[in-house]
Amino acid sequence: MAAASPNLAALVFDAYGTLYDVTAVAARCAHHFPGNGPAVSGLWRQKQLEYSWLNALMERHPDFWRLTEEGLRFACSALGLPLSDAAAADLIGEYLKLSAYPEVPGALERLSRKLPLAILSNGTRTMLEGVTRHNGLTERFRHILSVDEAGVFKPAPRVYQLAVERLGAPKERIGFVSTNAWDAAGAKSFGLHVIWINRFKRPRERLGYEPDREIHTLDELIPIAGA
Amino acid sequence: MAAASPNLAALVFDAYGTLYDVTAVAARCAHHFPGNGPAVSGLWRQKQLEYSWLNALMERHPDFWRLTEEGLRFACSALGLPLSDAAAADLIGEYLKLSAYPEVPGALERLSRKLPLAILSNGTRTMLEGVTRHNGLTERFRHILSVDEAGVFKPAPRVYQLAVERLGAPKERIGFVSTNAWDAAGAKSFGLHVIWINRFKRPRERLGYEPDREIHTLDELIPIAGA
Repeated sequence: MAAASPNLAALVFDAYGTLYDVTAVAARCAHHFPGNGPAVSGLWRQKQLEYSWLNALMERHPDFWRLTEEGLRFACSALGLPLSDAAAADLIGEYLKLSAYPEVPGALERLSRKLPLAILSNGTRTMLEGVTRHNGLTERFRHILSVDEAGVFKPAPRVYQLAVERLGAPKERIGFVSTNAWDAAGAKSFGLHVIWINRFKRPRERLGYEPDREIHTLDELIPIAGA
Repeated sequence: MAAASPNLAALVFDAYGTLYDVTAVAARCAHHFPGNGPAVSGLWRQKQLEYSWLNALMERHPDFWRLTEEGLRFACSALGLPLSDAAAADLIGEYLKLSAYPEVPGALERLSRKLPLAILSNGTRTMLEGVTRHNGLTERFRHILSVDEAGVFKPAPRVYQLAVERLGAPKERIGFVSTNAWDAAGAKSFGLHVIWINRFKRPRERLGYEPDREIHTLDELIPIAGA
């Protein structure tokens, strides 16, 4: 179904939901809001993303840490749940302590022997370096790139252009790996070689830009990259 | 709580959810998908908006009619519900036959005697002219403006700039009226005088740009506009 992969020069990974498992955030929501965990975490994630898209369209760029807090505050307000500053700090702090998905450390170890690897995420540099260090994966990456360097959020083309500039490779030889289907579509619209990790068996988004490959865990990337 | 309104030179209205009641779409979903009406209509509306934001960030501009269809097709696919072409056409066609909220015709009649009125919406010109004609309101508006003239969706500043160019008034003297809190935030970030119709008693979005006024039905705009 997928065309043969090109001779890839580098691999670039999204962070949240792609390398790092965000379900710990949902579990922490259940701790603070018994009986309302899924409602809070679902609306929080939706607003975190919406606020990134809306701010980008408004040509504003508050950082992702702040949007993460604003999304949480909206979710609690909309659900009528009081949120103390201590609980907010605890919940947002989870983003620095997320665990990598189980297969990620081993897969990155093999992939990094074959190709330069990078992270490209909506997160701030502090958030991305923090969670990567927490997982002992700092050495695996040639670059950890935050959208802050582009001054706009995904899926704006300027974000994906950062990868091209930093890796110094033609865009069609950069493999971009994301679990987020809208991020995969944005990268494909820009012109990267896109591998969608469909971890959650979701239907494809109807944005008009299909991934070059669809896989389900990072292990499946190893033969594709020849690693 | 709100500052005194400036000497307004014109009023510009969002369309869907502001002038025209979209609950008929939900009712039609319940007809086609018994037991799943709210699930389909909720996810459909969410995707319709998400696709407008994502395409705008990707610097692509499929029109809103097409995004409306893609959103519907995604919703049915995600929910595992078959969607015939006839049902799709029937459901999307509802957008041309929406009714104005009950107070809208009378309020527009009074407001139009005092100030020039315009519509500024994500909808295509065909969609906007169709639903306005259906409600017998064509004569009330000096301009019916589609984002297609700007080549991008709300809340990009270029969209709100259209109102300034067509109405020939300073932006702070243009009253922009929307039920959609994110649209109100975008208009405020751009610099219009913003009146948020909070029809559904929703919490404010945490986007950093508060409306100048919050009202609950269009009737409340009459004294504000001195009409």
